[in-house]
Amino acid sequence: MDVFIEPIGRLINEFSKLPGVGKKTAQRYAYKVIGMTDAEAKAFAESIVYCKQKVRYCKVCGNFTEEDVCEICKRRQNNIICVVKEPKDVIAMEKLHEFKGVYHVLHGVISPMDGVGPNDIRIKELLARIDGTVQEVIMATNPDVEGEATAMYIAKILKPLGVNVTRLAHGIPVGGELEYTDEVTLSRALTERKSI
Amino acid sequence: MDVFIEPIGRLINEFSKLPGVGKKTAQRYAYKVIGMTDAEAKAFAESIVYCKQKVRYCKVCGNFTEEDVCEICKRRQNNIICVVKEPKDVIAMEKLHEFKGVYHVLHGVISPMDGVGPNDIRIKELLARIDGTVQEVIMATNPDVEGEATAMYIAKILKPLGVNVTRLAHGIPVGGELEYTDEVTLSRALTERKSI
Repeated sequence: MDVFIEPIGRLINEFSKLPGVGKKTAQRYAYKVIGMTDAEAKAFAESIVYCKQKVRYCKVCGNFTEEDVCEICKRRQNNIICVVKEPKDVIAMEKLHEFKGVYHVLHGVISPMDGVGPNDIRIKELLARIDGTVQEVIMATNPDVEGEATAMYIAKILKPLGVNVTRLAHGIPVGGELEYTDEVTLSRALTERKSI
Repeated sequence: MDVFIEPIGRLINEFSKLPGVGKKTAQRYAYKVIGMTDAEAKAFAESIVYCKQKVRYCKVCGNFTEEDVCEICKRRQNNIICVVKEPKDVIAMEKLHEFKGVYHVLHGVISPMDGVGPNDIRIKELLARIDGTVQEVIMATNPDVEGEATAMYIAKILKPLGVNVTRLAHGIPVGGELEYTDEVTLSRALTERKSI
């Protein structure tokens, strides 16, 4: 780093902390900042502090919000809860503009390998939300080992409470090709075939 | 952007201004910031403002510096000047730890297509530095059309002043393969072959 003067070196170091950013990319970002006007650089810096200050977790669902309870929890029908791993999964679902229920963000999945047990994610908080009005809980955790295990674990607890627990469907991606679909997915698509 | 709450949307927008960063990457960076501690986010924001405030251009060579004249201009022998397009090219040269002379950053190259003429880059400033002590000027602009033209233009002005003007060598990259070397480069490597 000795080829850079200190303020540039420090900025490169900060940019390097972003996911997937190496020294070379961080260097490009730093040059971009140097090329900005003072006002632009200030706006950039302020947006970081502002975002960090303003964004909290919704007390009900655990999603990002500026208030105690998020807009989705306030306004939507709460008889269908979609359970996801992270706030970014809420964004993915919301982009569909199809789901009209509310969410529950677990902030992780059960993963004994990483020392994450059922008490380390927001399962208790989910159970607290289950009252007579909840008709369905959609398990929308990722279709990987941890996501599946977490979905199964939660389903096992919820079913005795008389809640209808569902899971996002597996199958061939739309626009995909049979030839390039992995075997596990193709096998699931076959098992879960539907009459047309 | 309506799926994001305002502070996150604003931060994503700021990150999107960085070179090569799209919405998806900006989103990942924003989540990273939200996951930082308050102190970390503050340090990140401050490094942007600090860098923008502190970094200026050296009055002599045009490279980045914190003072009026950069450390390289202050300390190095100034009888050899290496002319480059941008400050980042100085970094590339400095990483070699071989060149012991000083630099001159043009802050651009002559490019009539983009409306950049000889008076728009730091050629005047270079000529002002040419006194009896300068023995050699190394033209280290990029080996593209504009870089070559700029090197030729400057060489034409400098030669009558009795300065030895040189250019970085062209040829096959070390570790490269003949098969994959483009024809222009290979042709130059052949023309400029050396006895061994």
